[in-house]
Amino acid sequence: MEFFQLRRVDEAQSLFLEACPKGPLGVEELDLLEAHGRCLAEDVRSAGDLPAFDRSSVDGYAVRAGDTFGASEGLPAYLRVVEEIPMGRAPARRLGPGECARIATGGMLPDGADAVVMIEHTEHLAADEVGVLRAVSPGENVMRRGEDCPAGGVLVPAGRPLRAQELSLLAHAGVLRVRVARRPRVAIVATGDELVDPGEEPGPGQIRESNSFALRALVAEEGGQPVFLGRAPDVRDAVEAKLREALKYDVVLVSGGSSVGARDMTAEIIGGLGRLGILVHGVNLKPGKPTILAVVDGRPVVGLPGHPVSAQVVFALFVSPLLRRLLGLPPFPGHRPAVRARMAKNVASAAGRVDVLRVALEARDGELWAEPVQGKSGLITTLTRADGAVIIREEKEGLLAGEWVDVHPI
Amino acid sequence: MEFFQLRRVDEAQSLFLEACPKGPLGVEELDLLEAHGRCLAEDVRSAGDLPAFDRSSVDGYAVRAGDTFGASEGLPAYLRVVEEIPMGRAPARRLGPGECARIATGGMLPDGADAVVMIEHTEHLAADEVGVLRAVSPGENVMRRGEDCPAGGVLVPAGRPLRAQELSLLAHAGVLRVRVARRPRVAIVATGDELVDPGEEPGPGQIRESNSFALRALVAEEGGQPVFLGRAPDVRDAVEAKLREALKYDVVLVSGGSSVGARDMTAEIIGGLGRLGILVHGVNLKPGKPTILAVVDGRPVVGLPGHPVSAQVVFALFVSPLLRRLLGLPPFPGHRPAVRARMAKNVASAAGRVDVLRVALEARDGELWAEPVQGKSGLITTLTRADGAVIIREEKEGLLAGEWVDVHPI
Repeated sequence: MEFFQLRRVDEAQSLFLEACPKGPLGVEELDLLEAHGRCLAEDVRSAGDLPAFDRSSVDGYAVRAGDTFGASEGLPAYLRVVEEIPMGRAPARRLGPGECARIATGGMLPDGADAVVMIEHTEHLAADEVGVLRAVSPGENVMRRGEDCPAGGVLVPAGRPLRAQELSLLAHAGVLRVRVARRPRVAIVATGDELVDPGEEPGPGQIRESNSFALRALVAEEGGQPVFLGRAPDVRDAVEAKLREALKYDVVLVSGGSSVGARDMTAEIIGGLGRLGILVHGVNLKPGKPTILAVVDGRPVVGLPGHPVSAQVVFALFVSPLLRRLLGLPPFPGHRPAVRARMAKNVASAAGRVDVLRVALEARDGELWAEPVQGKSGLITTLTRADGAVIIREEKEGLLAGEWVDVHPI
Repeated sequence: MEFFQLRRVDEAQSLFLEACPKGPLGVEELDLLEAHGRCLAEDVRSAGDLPAFDRSSVDGYAVRAGDTFGASEGLPAYLRVVEEIPMGRAPARRLGPGECARIATGGMLPDGADAVVMIEHTEHLAADEVGVLRAVSPGENVMRRGEDCPAGGVLVPAGRPLRAQELSLLAHAGVLRVRVARRPRVAIVATGDELVDPGEEPGPGQIRESNSFALRALVAEEGGQPVFLGRAPDVRDAVEAKLREALKYDVVLVSGGSSVGARDMTAEIIGGLGRLGILVHGVNLKPGKPTILAVVDGRPVVGLPGHPVSAQVVFALFVSPLLRRLLGLPPFPGHRPAVRARMAKNVASAAGRVDVLRVALEARDGELWAEPVQGKSGLITTLTRADGAVIIREEKEGLLAGEWVDVHPI
């Protein structure tokens, strides 16, 4: 273990993630709506063809496509209307040559029909006669049986997060219970001699413990199950006892230990709890330098700075990707969604270090501008006044006023 | 009421939103963590100064800044260390001239001290003597009492969504219960003769009702409370009874009525339920043309196409902004977060119409590409295979391969 040798952010991320569990930690079966946002643990296949019958995708007339060949406004194809197909029922009869049937979007095509002419491309001539003004080709305006998913086909693959549309598709196929990756349980411990419970009145030199609120909210946002184990003073036995309790959960977040001595003590305790121990202690990141990344007997342990702004940055860079993976979620394709904006001011940044800048968004002259939030970085209000964060990579020595940047919502 | 006169999307949005309730519908009091993501109904003020005392923002020595003036590596200022201030306690004594006290990040400054010298800018000379190698100015490395928020100041203003950092700040200030805008209750009705419950086996021409699953998930994602009232066949009395029941809730979503006759019937029923009735019937939008936007005795009613893809588009364009407003959330500053990608293909679009294109994201040559999802728009799998949507505005006649676009996650 190299003590407080500053690691690059990307190095620290891969050192840590490579030593963490590679995927979900277990499976649970849930009702479809409870599984919203979760990840399928296994492929779900369709029992039958979807749709189960040829369906019209427009309002119009089901036809034999061949009967419409050559039809035009000047020379309509005249067809006999033999039926109005009711929604939710099978057509009463097979379509013969020169025949058609009135059909609505979603209606079932009669045998013999292989296309639908849109109502806009017909003229009504009599109760049982219609003129087709435009030819259709076989399959036109038809969702064919099995075209959405054939019987036995994979409806939704393992590892796919269940969004609104996946829920809809599964319900459509009659799948009402699903097996998904279970939510990782994330133990949160707050340490610090200066902390009192938020319901207490702090004495001189004391503050209310509040980082756990942000951490619980962030864990829940990412789909984890936060469990707050309370706080411990900066006393070896107390911190060690809390950490041993925390190791019964899937992931451990320990916040605080802001004084140098307390930080070193937390690192020493984590290092002594089991294999592999500490992988990273110190990251070339501002704010967030005194981060601890460890794995103890297979369980990820992250020591977050007590400083609320740093804690949130460290969570986003190291804990979020871990939780996504434990939930079975794929990494973001490319980047997390962001808002594009132009920097309102020049901002300097040390080369070789990742700087995370808090910004407020302002619309001006039809463009969006990112205004750096002023104030000492220890102030929580610099976070509450910010709309998002701009990440300045190691290679950059700052940002220029007017430059386009990605603002990540925080 | 103009029947099926196609409205521009932005016109339809403002016609509808201007007739809807202007803000939250009520207030409820919640524990802090339950209020995550909700909007404050009133300003929350700080009872005391935050921080409650001058705190160090670094590890180092609390000093009288004047004692360090002119200090440099070549000519250090020598100070007597009179104390090591323990975390969470008041310093034992006032700092006199030429004196300093060891202090950790977050520690309480002693009376007399007005700045902190970082440990990196000192040299240890003896147990009780330190050399200061760099001058500090008054206030340097100090979070002053009340600097985060003075007593009586607004900690978090009304209308601000409670993110992780707001929860942390409120807990820090000892505010553990908050009054927030209540969640709008959104009634969902599915109509259609072709529908059976998802637990049933559909007969010929029938399909399982599944749109309500997507709508329930989308409402919940946006912070609303979905209430599914079940389905009704396309029979006037049945639909009307369901809609009257639905009007007991804050917002009504009616999905389906895909055949022309059923659509017209739904519109007629909505139009007859109360004032103002139907504001928009038909939007120049693909997919999503047969949208109904109405307000009935103050309650927003949206008729969504039965087509699942259209329903999701209409939800995003008309229902999401409404729910955000009813939750007290501000409109997005600028745009919703999106992923920037380049179009993989040319795509045509009719001028004067908004086209919503489903795309899959692919990383290629270090860039992100948006590949239009192939397949008839009636197929639900065109939604499950998509990562996001690209909106092609009225003014554009299409997108060119290679063009940068915003991909909105769906």
